[in-house]
Parts: sequence; C-alpha cells; structure tokens
Amino acid sequence: MRSIRRPTIGVFDSGVGGLTVLHALLDRIPDADYLYFGDTARLPYGSKSAATVVHYAMGAVRYLQEQGAEFLVIACNTATALALDQIKTSSLVEVIGVVEPGAEAAAKATTQRRVVVIGTEATVASHAYRRALETRNVAVREKACPLLVPLVEEGWTEHSVTEQVARIYLAEAFSEDSRDADVLVLGCTHYPLLKPLLRRIAPAYVTIVDSAESTAHTVARQLEIDPLHPPNDPERRTVPRLKFFATDSADKFKNMGTRFLGHPVEDVVHVDLKE
Amino acid sequence: MRSIRRPTIGVFDSGVGGLTVLHALLDRIPDADYLYFGDTARLPYGSKSAATVVHYAMGAVRYLQEQGAEFLVIACNTATALALDQIKTSSLVEVIGVVEPGAEAAAKATTQRRVVVIGTEATVASHAYRRALETRNVAVREKACPLLVPLVEEGWTEHSVTEQVARIYLAEAFSEDSRDADVLVLGCTHYPLLKPLLRRIAPAYVTIVDSAESTAHTVARQLEIDPLHPPNDPERRTVPRLKFFATDSADKFKNMGTRFLGHPVEDVVHVDLKE
Repeated sequence: MRSIRRPTIGVFDSGVGGLTVLHALLDRIPDADYLYFGDTARLPYGSKSAATVVHYAMGAVRYLQEQGAEFLVIACNTATALALDQIKTSSLVEVIGVVEPGAEAAAKATTQRRVVVIGTEATVASHAYRRALETRNVAVREKACPLLVPLVEEGWTEHSVTEQVARIYLAEAFSEDSRDADVLVLGCTHYPLLKPLLRRIAPAYVTIVDSAESTAHTVARQLEIDPLHPPNDPERRTVPRLKFFATDSADKFKNMGTRFLGHPVEDVVHVDLKE
Repeated sequence: MRSIRRPTIGVFDSGVGGLTVLHALLDRIPDADYLYFGDTARLPYGSKSAATVVHYAMGAVRYLQEQGAEFLVIACNTATALALDQIKTSSLVEVIGVVEPGAEAAAKATTQRRVVVIGTEATVASHAYRRALETRNVAVREKACPLLVPLVEEGWTEHSVTEQVARIYLAEAFSEDSRDADVLVLGCTHYPLLKPLLRRIAPAYVTIVDSAESTAHTVARQLEIDPLHPPNDPERRTVPRLKFFATDSADKFKNMGTRFLGHPVEDVVHVDLKE
C-alpha cells in the first residue's frame, strides 16, 4: 500500500448494492474521499455472461481512475468473481474485491470447516467463493438466490413473501452434505438489507458473514499499515466527501441509493460510458 | 404497408420476453422470415430511465434494419412505451409496438369502460397505456409488478410464492375505483407465461388481454391488407425461417429462450453493439 494521507477510494458496483459496502467503509474509514460508480444503465450483472461483465467492469474502473481514485474497491460480488483478475492486471492502483475478504472471514468463523455461500447466478456459476474457500481448506455449498435482489429492490425486506423465498433457498442450501455448515456468507451486496430476516430463519448455530463488512475491514487494515495514516487519531477524523456517478438516471440513483446507504445520497452525476 | 410477398419481420426486445410475441406471430404469420434481437447484455429495460431505453432501442432497431428487416415489431412494452415515437421517426420501414394493439383489444373487450394494466415500473411510469386507453374513452388503473419478471425467469410460473405475489399485486390493482374493471391487460411480454395462474386468481368476470397476441393480430392485419400477400392460401404457407441475435451469451439465450418461445431456439448469433 502506497502512503496516502487522505486517500480517494473508488468504489464500483453494477448498481446501488455496493452502497452497503460504502456504508461499511464510511464506518471504518471516515477520513477519506469516496468516488462511487454505479453502472445502473447496465445492471444487473448477476445474470450476465463473464465476457460482458469483464467488458463493463473494465470501463467503469478506468473511469474511476480518471476521476482520481487511488485505491479501488470492487463492491460487487459478480464483478469481483468474473473480472477482478483482469482489473488488477490493468489497474495502476491497488484493487480489492469482496470475495477474498468474505472468504477470509468465513474461514475464520467456521469450526465445522463447512460453509454456505448465497449469491447471484453469475457469482455462483463463477465458483469464486469455492476457490477462495477450498484454498483455506473449507468445504462450501454455493446457492444462487436470484429472487432476493428484486425482493430487496421492491422494498420487501421484511415481507412474508421474502421470508418464504429465503426459507426455500436456505432449506436447499443447508441440506445433504451441507447440513452441518456453520457459516452463511452473504455473497451479494444486496443481502445485508436482509440480514435481520436471514438471521431469524437461518439455523441458530450459523454465523452470518457479510462480505460488505469483511471488505471494509480488509480495506481499513490495508490503510492502517500505512504509518503515515494512523486510523484512530481523532483529530484527523473529518467528514468524508462523497461523489457518485451513475450510468442511468441520477434521480433514480438518489432515491434507491438512499435506502442502501442508510443516509441521503446527494452529489450524483450521470455518466454516459461509451463502450 | 408496402407490398412484401414474404416479409422479413424484425422483432426487438430487451431480452427473451419478446419471444412470446414471436410465438404469437409464428402462429399467425408462418409465411415470413424472422430476425429476433434480444438486448440481453443490457436487460432489463423495465427499471431504466427513458433516455437510456431510447438510446438502446434505437441501436438495436438500426441493427435489425441493417440485417434486412422490412417490418419492425417492438416486442417490448417498455421500449414501446418509451421509444416508439423516436423509432418510428427514424425508421425506414413500418414499425408496430405492443401498446396500441393491447389497448385496442382492451377497449373492445371492456363493457365497464374500465381496465387494469400490469407491467414493469418503466412501462407504468410512462403512462403509455393510460394515454392509449383514455383516447378510447376507457378509464385505466396501471399497476407496476416488478417481481413478476424475476419469478418467471426463476421458472416459478406455477409456484405458491408467485401466486401470493400476484394476489398482492392484483388486490391492489383491482381496488377502490378500479374494483369494477373488467379487463386485465398483460402489459409485459413475460406475463403470458403466467396467464394460467393469473386466470385462476383474477376475478371471474375479468377478461385477460395478452398484448403479445393482440400485436400479432395487428401485424397479421397489416400484412393481410396487402393484396399481393393473401394470408390463408395454404400453398404459400411455408416453414418460417428464424434467426436470433443476442448481446449477451448466445448459449444463455438458447436455454432461456426455448422456454419463452415454446420450441427450440437454435440459430443464435452474439452481437456486440457499440454504443
């Protein structure tokens, strides 16, 4: 990690889901400036092919660097799963995705050495979590839950329908050889909004690992190892500056984004990315 | 309508939903060649802004004309609602959308002069059906049902969760001043796959109007008025030729598309539309 006194952190997601990661980052690293890019015109990435996701993610990440990002967080499980290696290869700045931090936290939390990961179809099909967990000697059941994102976006985070859908998905996930899994990884940045509901319906002995929080923790650790940037010096804690870029309507981004970030999303610029 | 003996009909949708319109077209007009364009890399259009949808739809429609389409069907309610006027202005060939045919059929079917239209958020926000129906002196309640598309794509067309979600949506739609509406317009090309379920839960006196079928009917009528193209001459009925273009993975399009078209989707070409 290069020495950056007050870093400009670029956060990228296909839409507003990555704002749960930004929320976690703001909690841990308020002494930073943030550029958030939501590729809302082309979301969701979760049902798209790898080639398409790589193409879109590379364009967005290039844009963030042009805007001054000195550190990049790929706050999208699908983009991390499918495009992180290419982004790292082409990026001039340090890049962190959400899969490794989530896998790391899961590996620490499991005593059974067996976890369940839920995510979008594309994240599951990539087996990025499987690879990251098997390297750590943890067995994994990956389960795609394609209805959870639209349910969250509908605002039904505590709705009985969402509970039924989640029960169906979790029953399938925690069955057969993964019956004794003791960790549930939220492998999609929309899912933190379902954490209270998932906590109620997941088996009581299961620890829930939120990749958004794990990622913020990893980023903070990276910045803390910089001796010029002590994180807990209260005099240096200032109000973070936030700027948002969206490829679809700025107004739509503000409205939906506020719910995901947990406080008002204001300075939004519409960006038309030529491919 | 220009005289075209065996027309090449271009059918455009954001994804696979328009295949329900193609299915209806094949039933009525087998003596034609079809080019189907699914903008699967950038779906769904339903939650995007008008400017984005216009931009995407124009590119796709231009491509279909370059490939030889002599007649265009915008088999996507959102694209019709948001982009039909611009497409018509710039197109060299005749263009038909799904909204006018659906509104026409609904206006004929209602005796109460009051109908309910269900569709995506973008279709509802555009009020395209409202305008088309009010011109015909029909009062309308438009209801956005954002969860139905993902439920159909999950394959849960007869699932109890889908039934509950549909009951919630229809109860809201058929309430207050639209309690006596006697027509339900399926204003999204995914919804024909839910017709059996919706038929069961909609009030018994309600007629269901499927825009896909209404559109095929209108296209057939347009072609039938061509004296060089008698529609019911059995000697001229040949096997239709089908060619598909998709902006995301061709394999994914084949798999999902087969369910929507009702028979195998084969000749799929991946297209990378530069914006």
